[in-house]
Amino acid sequence: MTEFIPPGSRFVDLPSPFPMKRGGALSGARMAYETWGHPDPARSNAVLIVTGLSPDAHAASHDDDPSPGWWEQMLGPGKAIDTDRWFVICVNSLGSCKGSTGPASIDPTTGELYRLGFPELSIEDGADAAAHVVRALGIERLACVIGNSMGGMTALALLARHPGIARSHINICGAARALPFSIAIRSLQREAIRLDPKWNGGNYTEADYPESGMRMARKLGVITYRSALEWDGRFGRVRLDSDRRDDEDPFGLEFEVESYLEGHARRFVRRFDPNCYLYLSRSMDWFDIGESCGADTEAGLASLRMERALAIGVQTDILFPLQQQQQIADGLRAGGVDAHFLPLESPQGHDAFLVDIARFGPAVAGFLEALPPAVARGDR
Amino acid sequence: MTEFIPPGSRFVDLPSPFPMKRGGALSGARMAYETWGHPDPARSNAVLIVTGLSPDAHAASHDDDPSPGWWEQMLGPGKAIDTDRWFVICVNSLGSCKGSTGPASIDPTTGELYRLGFPELSIEDGADAAAHVVRALGIERLACVIGNSMGGMTALALLARHPGIARSHINICGAARALPFSIAIRSLQREAIRLDPKWNGGNYTEADYPESGMRMARKLGVITYRSALEWDGRFGRVRLDSDRRDDEDPFGLEFEVESYLEGHARRFVRRFDPNCYLYLSRSMDWFDIGESCGADTEAGLASLRMERALAIGVQTDILFPLQQQQQIADGLRAGGVDAHFLPLESPQGHDAFLVDIARFGPAVAGFLEALPPAVARGDR
Repeated sequence: MTEFIPPGSRFVDLPSPFPMKRGGALSGARMAYETWGHPDPARSNAVLIVTGLSPDAHAASHDDDPSPGWWEQMLGPGKAIDTDRWFVICVNSLGSCKGSTGPASIDPTTGELYRLGFPELSIEDGADAAAHVVRALGIERLACVIGNSMGGMTALALLARHPGIARSHINICGAARALPFSIAIRSLQREAIRLDPKWNGGNYTEADYPESGMRMARKLGVITYRSALEWDGRFGRVRLDSDRRDDEDPFGLEFEVESYLEGHARRFVRRFDPNCYLYLSRSMDWFDIGESCGADTEAGLASLRMERALAIGVQTDILFPLQQQQQIADGLRAGGVDAHFLPLESPQGHDAFLVDIARFGPAVAGFLEALPPAVARGDR
Repeated sequence: MTEFIPPGSRFVDLPSPFPMKRGGALSGARMAYETWGHPDPARSNAVLIVTGLSPDAHAASHDDDPSPGWWEQMLGPGKAIDTDRWFVICVNSLGSCKGSTGPASIDPTTGELYRLGFPELSIEDGADAAAHVVRALGIERLACVIGNSMGGMTALALLARHPGIARSHINICGAARALPFSIAIRSLQREAIRLDPKWNGGNYTEADYPESGMRMARKLGVITYRSALEWDGRFGRVRLDSDRRDDEDPFGLEFEVESYLEGHARRFVRRFDPNCYLYLSRSMDWFDIGESCGADTEAGLASLRMERALAIGVQTDILFPLQQQQQIADGLRAGGVDAHFLPLESPQGHDAFLVDIARFGPAVAGFLEALPPAVARGDR
């Protein structure tokens, strides 16, 4: 009902019951995923992509869905993530509304939507569910797990909870733990949704939908996903033409930047389930890779085992600031990983990985091209 | 009704009618102000303070109101703004609800609150009203005008529209024009208020008050007034004790930073009138000192005449970023002013001028102490 499932999706059933980290379990849950390229005979060339809060598994076009994906410029034959070489898997996050089971899915035990009856969702649950997809595809060991934004957290949790699942890792604008600025932003986004009377304790309908709250949440999101620097150049103080303004509304849209936010919000509000948004947002606040090491984030990072890693960040990112990717690289290196930190000067803020392919493409391609061939585990 | 007037306030009536820049005029309007120290015989030692969006004129304690003011640490005998030397005036902004006429005041032509019937308010109107207060106090020429945040805009407008009104200027975390990031933040704050059904097109009552919208607006404000860096050190990932949490609310407050925002919001929502907030907020978006110079901000700055100026900014300020104070200093210098730019490394973001007195105090004191004595105008 409020799920939005890309037409090229495939599905893997999760074990039933599927236990959740903070308690409870899912019955009959499933994960949506898409793939590109082909596994080699040793199934050693698989790359897993775990995503930010809102994307689906349709990262790029393929035969079953030729529409462009959200990382179309990055993923495909001859591109940075070269599907002529790699067997690429992208999963829709557990708890999302784009094919994987989440609060907008039917609870088989009641026949009704889960809504707030969905168990508390943590990043680690998403990691466990992604690991199950990898294994269901016959992959014992990924060549690389790539995590963007929230997916950077999911990837770290995957490496922590499933040792040996990946030889390498690219963390893109991710974080090893949530910090108070981003917690504050997300808390306010959730409050905007919950304050909308139409949210109705999670029991909204299509007809009576918390559109205002979702619009507020999305606008605040977009403000934190981009950067002041980019907007200075892109919008400056340009005003809307009079035919795009409502002069009857004394506080209506006047500047181009306001219209830009409004457009982003309108495109989003009916394409993402509000309860799923709340669950995924909260899961990020809770995340700290050091949780099981006495909240010592560095110790959590140093406990992770892989051959190589690259943490990429952007100077203008205010939501997952550069120091967080530096922390990931330093923490992994302290544990013996050949880990590097790459700060990029993209002006586009947190979202740069989606749009600044000129900078991100070569960084990702260079890391993947330099990965040495996998050694069969028995030979090690 | 929704005005909050400090007990030590004095008042100056504005000329009636008082014409407004964007059209319309106020009848029977007044400005609230407070003073500290005494004018010297030549009335050459006056310092005017114009404020940010929300403060009243009670910048510091004095005999008529011994309660601490919002700049108590900065202003007083022997302090950075030394009231043993300076005759200091602070005005409540036109359009505010703390003594000066604004949307929460009675419109004498109707006997009802202005509400949205208040004329469109611009920064320049606030500057004209402040200039009237200065002249009503018998001051021909200020020794210095100090503007903080929004007041930094007001001070520039004052200098532009009332040439010769000040010998010098300290611009603190101010801006010569609004840029799209801060426009976006303020637009979202206004939207939060307007979306609250209790705002009711501006016709709310004390009993039916847009508290949720004001709370959202204030929380977003506080997020942009402080800095991620400060919060990392101050809150980290510390959680509320269980007795400060509502375990019945699945998305309720959990982290200290959320509780901090909630506390700030609760203290603010009933202490500032929502319509006044909307008017003052919008006036900032409209401001560009270069408006009358074909939107050439540098030309607008270079047209300003004064002897000396200091623009102080803070590296962690995301709302009025450091480049904006650099622009002010450079622009004034291009026009022949002895203008300096002083970036401070305060961790507290935009609000640093309110709390980091250890850094701001010496900067302000040094500038004022170095001001040469005024030369009588006839001698020039």
